[in-house]
Amino acid sequence: MNAPEAKGSFKFVGSRPIRPDGVEKVTGKAVFGTDYKAANMLHGAIVRSPHPHARIKSIDTSKAEAVPGVKAVVTGADFPSIEDIIVRTGESSGSALDMSTNIMAKGEALYDGHAVAAVAAVTKQAALEAARLIAVDYEVLPHVIDINDAFAAEAPKVKEGIQAADLGEGQATRPNVTMKFPMAKGDAAAAMASAAHVVSGHYSLKPVHQGYIEPHAAVATWKADGKVDVWCSSQGQFDVRGLTASVLHIDVGNVRVMPLEIGGGFGGKTTIYLEPVAALLSKKSGRPVRVAMTREEVFRATGPAPGGEIDVKLGADADGKIVAAEIDLKYSSGAFSGGDVWAGAAHSINHYAIENYAVTGWNVLCNMPKHAAYRAPGAPQINFAVECAVNDLAEKLGMDPIEMRLKNAVLPGATGPMGNTLGEIGLVECLEAAKAHPHYSAPLGANQARGVACGSWMNYGGPSTAAVALADDGSVLVTEGNPDIGGSRASMALMAAETLGVPYEKVSVTIADTGSIGYSMVTGGSRTTYATGIAVIEAAKGVINIMRERAAKMWECDAGDVEWDDGKAVCKTGDNAGKTLTLAEIAAKAGATGGPIAFENGVNPLQHLPGYGAHICDVEVDKETGNVSVVRYTVVQDVGKAIHPAYVEGQMQGGAVQGIGWALNEAYIYNKDGRLDNAGFLDYRIPVASDMPMIDTVMVEKANPGHPYGVKGVGEVPIVPPLAAVGSAVSKAVGKPMRSLPISPDKVHAALNGG
Amino acid sequence: MNAPEAKGSFKFVGSRPIRPDGVEKVTGKAVFGTDYKAANMLHGAIVRSPHPHARIKSIDTSKAEAVPGVKAVVTGADFPSIEDIIVRTGESSGSALDMSTNIMAKGEALYDGHAVAAVAAVTKQAALEAARLIAVDYEVLPHVIDINDAFAAEAPKVKEGIQAADLGEGQATRPNVTMKFPMAKGDAAAAMASAAHVVSGHYSLKPVHQGYIEPHAAVATWKADGKVDVWCSSQGQFDVRGLTASVLHIDVGNVRVMPLEIGGGFGGKTTIYLEPVAALLSKKSGRPVRVAMTREEVFRATGPAPGGEIDVKLGADADGKIVAAEIDLKYSSGAFSGGDVWAGAAHSINHYAIENYAVTGWNVLCNMPKHAAYRAPGAPQINFAVECAVNDLAEKLGMDPIEMRLKNAVLPGATGPMGNTLGEIGLVECLEAAKAHPHYSAPLGANQARGVACGSWMNYGGPSTAAVALADDGSVLVTEGNPDIGGSRASMALMAAETLGVPYEKVSVTIADTGSIGYSMVTGGSRTTYATGIAVIEAAKGVINIMRERAAKMWECDAGDVEWDDGKAVCKTGDNAGKTLTLAEIAAKAGATGGPIAFENGVNPLQHLPGYGAHICDVEVDKETGNVSVVRYTVVQDVGKAIHPAYVEGQMQGGAVQGIGWALNEAYIYNKDGRLDNAGFLDYRIPVASDMPMIDTVMVEKANPGHPYGVKGVGEVPIVPPLAAVGSAVSKAVGKPMRSLPISPDKVHAALNGG
Repeated sequence: MNAPEAKGSFKFVGSRPIRPDGVEKVTGKAVFGTDYKAANMLHGAIVRSPHPHARIKSIDTSKAEAVPGVKAVVTGADFPSIEDIIVRTGESSGSALDMSTNIMAKGEALYDGHAVAAVAAVTKQAALEAARLIAVDYEVLPHVIDINDAFAAEAPKVKEGIQAADLGEGQATRPNVTMKFPMAKGDAAAAMASAAHVVSGHYSLKPVHQGYIEPHAAVATWKADGKVDVWCSSQGQFDVRGLTASVLHIDVGNVRVMPLEIGGGFGGKTTIYLEPVAALLSKKSGRPVRVAMTREEVFRATGPAPGGEIDVKLGADADGKIVAAEIDLKYSSGAFSGGDVWAGAAHSINHYAIENYAVTGWNVLCNMPKHAAYRAPGAPQINFAVECAVNDLAEKLGMDPIEMRLKNAVLPGATGPMGNTLGEIGLVECLEAAKAHPHYSAPLGANQARGVACGSWMNYGGPSTAAVALADDGSVLVTEGNPDIGGSRASMALMAAETLGVPYEKVSVTIADTGSIGYSMVTGGSRTTYATGIAVIEAAKGVINIMRERAAKMWECDAGDVEWDDGKAVCKTGDNAGKTLTLAEIAAKAGATGGPIAFENGVNPLQHLPGYGAHICDVEVDKETGNVSVVRYTVVQDVGKAIHPAYVEGQMQGGAVQGIGWALNEAYIYNKDGRLDNAGFLDYRIPVASDMPMIDTVMVEKANPGHPYGVKGVGEVPIVPPLAAVGSAVSKAVGKPMRSLPISPDKVHAALNGG
Repeated sequence: MNAPEAKGSFKFVGSRPIRPDGVEKVTGKAVFGTDYKAANMLHGAIVRSPHPHARIKSIDTSKAEAVPGVKAVVTGADFPSIEDIIVRTGESSGSALDMSTNIMAKGEALYDGHAVAAVAAVTKQAALEAARLIAVDYEVLPHVIDINDAFAAEAPKVKEGIQAADLGEGQATRPNVTMKFPMAKGDAAAAMASAAHVVSGHYSLKPVHQGYIEPHAAVATWKADGKVDVWCSSQGQFDVRGLTASVLHIDVGNVRVMPLEIGGGFGGKTTIYLEPVAALLSKKSGRPVRVAMTREEVFRATGPAPGGEIDVKLGADADGKIVAAEIDLKYSSGAFSGGDVWAGAAHSINHYAIENYAVTGWNVLCNMPKHAAYRAPGAPQINFAVECAVNDLAEKLGMDPIEMRLKNAVLPGATGPMGNTLGEIGLVECLEAAKAHPHYSAPLGANQARGVACGSWMNYGGPSTAAVALADDGSVLVTEGNPDIGGSRASMALMAAETLGVPYEKVSVTIADTGSIGYSMVTGGSRTTYATGIAVIEAAKGVINIMRERAAKMWECDAGDVEWDDGKAVCKTGDNAGKTLTLAEIAAKAGATGGPIAFENGVNPLQHLPGYGAHICDVEVDKETGNVSVVRYTVVQDVGKAIHPAYVEGQMQGGAVQGIGWALNEAYIYNKDGRLDNAGFLDYRIPVASDMPMIDTVMVEKANPGHPYGVKGVGEVPIVPPLAAVGSAVSKAVGKPMRSLPISPDKVHAALNGG
């Protein structure tokens, strides 16, 4: 990290001050999910199905209830009927029906690890003992986990009552296929038929977990007045509020969620698992209840990102212009519909200008937990397939793969993945920067090869609220409703400082509970610095207007005669012309001039200006063991204006590392009985620091005209290209296409040995 | 408490819904000061001086530091120099200099119980053991506690460096007298000389404690980024923030205070004792630290309300019109200046229209803790003296004491205690209601007598901030910065419901931390329902304006064409004329129409419209033991419009009970060595339920035109008249003037036996 510095025409934006939450987090003092203790709190434990699919014939809780110290037991029968759930349109609760079933089985266990009962007791030990004594009578039913198996017309049903998709005239329904998502332009078949060069391939990806270090944990207390207080770590206290209220069938205003620090989410903490369970245990016991997952529970019952089975066929003309694309992508979504396949389709080839395409997405159920968002949800899987195919095409034509991408890159004015016309996008700049980077022309060693890939993420906007208040010594207090995952405290403070013209050090940021600030959507979709940033800037402007009025009162002039300039009100006319009052001087007199100064406002900006990245990856293959090492890695990305560049670089590095892990090591491994065999970090291996080279970063700063300071989303783009960059590099090193992730040592070893 | 009902022209204001915090509090589930536990928290203990006045020659902490588990020791030397303390004008920090010394001695112990060192350890036991091992070398100095002794010109100095008041030409300074506060009108001496009837007397009151049930407790964590988080129970999280920041010499924005429920304050929790101590222990130890007082510590080192030595002389004409008043009042303020004597003087005779008076107040230091506010600070003491004298005067004239008061009562148009012209005041109405009350004419039994008194409190306004936000199901979330002491959750919800036109049940109120709402002054001075109520009403109006704009957007018309009527937007013109949209319908579409709906604003209204009360008290004296029982008690009070009448009645009853305790039982008893002999509720006896009759209440609702719903402050008035009402009743029963409080059985017994 560089020393603090100011960049460009900004005074604070673009500098790299110490992050407010940094030391607390690295010294272990920050309060995360399991750190919060309520007075008189009980400890919960959850009973989980050992079967991937089973009818729950009965649950006998009597022995559990007899364990000394047990204060409450709940099962699916204690939840409000899902028919009664109120689905609202505003604060994302559309999936609350499925969520209710996902967090506690209702008559049917749908995956290994599905919660079937929960216990609260005065000690964790008593809760675990009681959980062990809950007798569930299961009737084991056929299950299906593999996408290809689940897609089959004759596949066993993942659950009762699936609404299978209408697959079109004359097509038989497939019991586990709930959505077909076609997207087409031009005449793909004809263009493919006349293409000079065609490549095709089938690509496979297993579900992977978001791999956040902090397991889920929630404390809830159901109060005597019917209100529920929840403390938890999440990506959005407001969506926890809305979803919990929906599942519990109570007013949104009766749930108050206190955000704790979050130890990683990456999309996996945009949902709920424990909060309504803890709340119902609290309702029954009359005491606060904490429920926390073990790592094993996290793997068995939360997350994952979809696996995919993908066919890609690309056709190019003799010059390397891609003229046709035919893509078929099947994504899993767990035992519940509504997954990421639409986003996969939308991001499949949108970074290229292709006139003819036919893309078909399929959502396929399987006996796994309800899948959850994972950084750029749906995009990395399809990008792996498409970008590997583009590399194949470049090789076939004998073209430089970046040159081929430059020839096909999407340009401003095209239509983006969300259907809007694209403005200041920077794919071409990224590709050119990658091509010019020393990495791209560096010599390779023995058993080494290089892969490249590019990709994008749409970048979301959405509703956010922020407030700015002043204390009498000129301290500025920013209140936001978004957890600080990728640095929102620092970036909001920088934008507030920039707008108000006061030093960064005078600004304190509070991540408020849901009773203390207006609605703010989850921290996710690369939306927060953009949308919540706009809310903060607008709130700061609101405070500036109030300060102009107060200064005018002090000067006995019109507010219209007062301008705000660099942290000071300046009088423009009359007897006081030229006089100034600083923010601190105005704040000190706030009582006398009308009262405390504070301004809150909600915004709902659209972003929909995708970010693009181009990645270069060098791998070295150990021919004896099949082990793959990433020896050099460079991330080039169009980041808009970087508010706090060190955080942006951190996002680029972190996304790349997660993509590398996905490419090389990560996958859910279910045994023949449908039980997860690798539910822990020893067997589900995410990259650790010693696995990685330093990830080099190049920020291409093409400002977003739709944000006052030029912000674009940056958090999700960098996980999109690594799968193909790594995969193509290994394929080259091995000399065979490696199209099934993870490219684990056994697969490499087999490929090297003719497998 | 009556069943819920709506009263008058209001829909919700004036009804009596269940209080939101009620069941939690009575079932012991609410989280008060000592209930909050921080992760990894240490426990603090404070070492206190056993001497009322001593020089601290040295403090040896080495043995304490050697106790296993001890993580930090602090003394006065660890506090920033009081010369460095930043005194601000906005968020009340004017007394921060003295406060720093009051909470930790700096070289000189000023009273029995003065903190001289503090320890933090992993267990409370280790902390107490270490505290015991701290060796303080004291040089004991002369002390003085009694006001009369301290007032003397030859008295020992309470401390070094007292700035004694200039007592006027030719007058020698008195070392412990720091303020002389004269107030005069007309020619009191001449009027007194020509008065038809004159009474006079000397009245004595000892310091009394506020008697809140919950001892002080605070948890603080000094974070690595220099920010301090504090959890505590107080009457105002913002003033705790400001004072703590001042004492610690850090930016206000670097202190965040999380309010917990408060178990009584009555003025005594408008200040700080433990917060900076816990913060410094946390800074040294690197861990959160909780410091909590024992009951003994509460008595020895917090509070009390001033004692007083008061001379009153009143002169009346033959008709009972009071023509002259001469009053001299000496109030103690502990070892620090700046007490309540100004308020005592201001409230001395302001409830009467008297043309000639000379009132002199004196602030006298003594070796006691810095005195603190107690319900109507300064008023009950002087009211005891003046109202007893008025009763003496009525008896002398043979007039009914209420008739005499009606003849002299202050009327609208007079000048109030704060110097402003009084508007809709209701003393006459109260006196008439008291006179007409069946209690006033009820027969008395053997050994029984009746006393009456009236009195007032100025009622403060001051700065408050509130916000209102909507959730997508139409839930209304009110955020305020004032602890819920006398029902602010309920009254704010009622006023928000009234303004918005939505049911009370749809409104949730959050008492926010200082990072989540703008500045709000303490809950005290009878200001909260008034001032914070205005902030809530204004915030609700702000939300209505936003909703009108959003409805206009949905109807494609101008916001000016949309009116808000009874919870709904109504379109007034155009194609949609007559159409309506409810709050919930607008809230559900907030995202699509511009973003989340929220509005925050700060106000600083003046109230300064005093409340008045007239009390009737019947006592029965046990001639054998001298014990006094209150057998009937009636409180009549002008309360403005009662937002939640049950709470108002509760305030009237609670104030009366505290006043009765003050009159009959409560006093600090210091022994000859200056040590407090009754530092506990066994020896310092506050009234309990079995001591009291049902206190009857009569609300006189004379609306305050300065508040949208007519609110006047109600919390402080009812503690003002009881001292004289009780005192006069006992004097009548005994047949001798009882002018020294408390009128304890020994004094009554002595009076009955010729003492």
